[in-house]
Amino acid sequence: MSEQASTPLTNINDLGEFGLIEHLTKDIKLQNTSTLKGVGDDAAVIDNGNYLTVVSTDLLVEGIHFDLMYTPLKHLGYKAVVVNLSDIYAMNAQPKQITVSIAISNRFSVEALDELYAGMLAACQAYGVDLVGGDTSSSLKGLIISITAIGQGEKDKLTYRHTARVGDLVCITGDVGAAYLGLQILEREKQLYLSNPETQPDLEDQQYLIGKQLKPEARKDMVELFAQNKLAPTAMIDVSDGVASDLMHICQDSGVGAFIEESGVPIHPDAQLMALKFNLDPITCALNGGEDYELLFTIDPADVEKIKYLPDIYIMGEIVPQSEGLTLHTKGGNIHPLKAQGWRHFNS
Amino acid sequence: MSEQASTPLTNINDLGEFGLIEHLTKDIKLQNTSTLKGVGDDAAVIDNGNYLTVVSTDLLVEGIHFDLMYTPLKHLGYKAVVVNLSDIYAMNAQPKQITVSIAISNRFSVEALDELYAGMLAACQAYGVDLVGGDTSSSLKGLIISITAIGQGEKDKLTYRHTARVGDLVCITGDVGAAYLGLQILEREKQLYLSNPETQPDLEDQQYLIGKQLKPEARKDMVELFAQNKLAPTAMIDVSDGVASDLMHICQDSGVGAFIEESGVPIHPDAQLMALKFNLDPITCALNGGEDYELLFTIDPADVEKIKYLPDIYIMGEIVPQSEGLTLHTKGGNIHPLKAQGWRHFNS
Repeated sequence: MSEQASTPLTNINDLGEFGLIEHLTKDIKLQNTSTLKGVGDDAAVIDNGNYLTVVSTDLLVEGIHFDLMYTPLKHLGYKAVVVNLSDIYAMNAQPKQITVSIAISNRFSVEALDELYAGMLAACQAYGVDLVGGDTSSSLKGLIISITAIGQGEKDKLTYRHTARVGDLVCITGDVGAAYLGLQILEREKQLYLSNPETQPDLEDQQYLIGKQLKPEARKDMVELFAQNKLAPTAMIDVSDGVASDLMHICQDSGVGAFIEESGVPIHPDAQLMALKFNLDPITCALNGGEDYELLFTIDPADVEKIKYLPDIYIMGEIVPQSEGLTLHTKGGNIHPLKAQGWRHFNS
Repeated sequence: MSEQASTPLTNINDLGEFGLIEHLTKDIKLQNTSTLKGVGDDAAVIDNGNYLTVVSTDLLVEGIHFDLMYTPLKHLGYKAVVVNLSDIYAMNAQPKQITVSIAISNRFSVEALDELYAGMLAACQAYGVDLVGGDTSSSLKGLIISITAIGQGEKDKLTYRHTARVGDLVCITGDVGAAYLGLQILEREKQLYLSNPETQPDLEDQQYLIGKQLKPEARKDMVELFAQNKLAPTAMIDVSDGVASDLMHICQDSGVGAFIEESGVPIHPDAQLMALKFNLDPITCALNGGEDYELLFTIDPADVEKIKYLPDIYIMGEIVPQSEGLTLHTKGGNIHPLKAQGWRHFNS
């Protein structure tokens, strides 16, 4: 009775992820003066007088965001927390509390849930975060995890997406593409297992790639390094959808473009090799793979001396005027537009 | 590969809702001094220096918490927000922000989502709350909604569950049982519709009961009334699981018992009549129905003059020593133990 019968309805696929979010949030009007930033950044920002409270939330659905065939529940719990904390660090803030809601079907045992919670509590321990609340319910199908992270930031240090300026340097921490390639290995082994359950998975030599996929870490260390070195990024985001897509967010929100050097994009040697083994272009994996949870940020060129000797930070390119778009300067000397791939869950 | 094969696993049904929550949260250790209250009340409490931040979260799953056969999406959106705000009011605090995460299957159109969001934004408007963030994803099956509400409370006014004292009066706002009976009507009409799709639903004379089920309101007005009358409840909870169950939370957490007069439990005349029509005991519906979103609270007997002339507040009984348990004094003069019914989703 409830779903409307009137004729031309719009399929959610037609809008895509970003289009759908834009569509759903365009009518939101903020009413409270304490709400400094609503929808549209890694986290919402609330004014608390003394400092700012940052809030971020993620919903993870079995079969969409994770596959329990190759994801141990403890790792899943750990990762589910870490990806939320990553959003808080991406604001240059410190996560302090999380809430966790889960819905589970009957097929899960208490022991399975214990594993999941052990992973979540291990992440809380590692990052100094308190699990302060939540909701536990049943689901008709599969496991659903919703986590909200709450953090604290200083008023003059919080770093948004919309504040990159032309001439800023585009930097990234760690390396990118590894988590995506880890996923490809796990998917391959799953297919082999499904076609022959006596196959033993062959993962042992790919610890790095699989580790980046199953047990990513948020870059708390980098946010601390920024503070120690009095480095204030001009804009920042964490890499969840992929470098290209997340850089596009910074550029769109800041009204700028970006020029990226392929040679500046850090790719782990294991990721390089594995990409070739899968007949994939390593730079495509690095730019579009996603789930890296590295920090992608821009800095004032005057700060270049500050990062020069810092470990694990790489300069990938430069912010340019919006009219120049987002481009990649390849090692071969060509310049290509950098295409951001949205989320494709609805298309599968 | 991930679900453990070792033998005697514990079925989640064996623990029940409250047992499961207790089991999953028993190892949580708080690390941050700003975390004043973690798991175990209507909301978590965070110290912000000037005042307290309260955080509450709910996860709603289609087929478990709502049925789209008889729930218009706009009402669902409104209710999903209101039930979260109700948790914040139950702390004697003011909700200020919410985050909304949804996962949807392909069968939902953009127009259907627009209805859902229109309902959520209508609730935000009505309660002066900002929607500040969220996550949008796809689901394998049905609609999943996760909402986190963030509120603000004054340090000396926040009201917990664990602070009821022997001799306090047990009070309730509004009336109870109506939402449960509204649900019974909707379920009956659904069954009639399923057995004969040409049947027209017969709902028009039960606006009150159906309204309490489909479009409940949170008692913002009561929290304001408390402030205006300088009334500080000693303990408070909102009625989501049912009066008996929620009173049990207050009693367990406060280490007390309660004595409830059947004649003191407010039941709307429409609920009385409908219960009898369904061959149900009205007081059982009132005490165990749930989803009333009224405020159940205790006050110091010295404050009785303050509530005597306030509208829509009823004294149901008294807090007694824990050794006396939770009992109901019936109109017939008998004294029965008050049984709290947990949530039974896993058993269905």
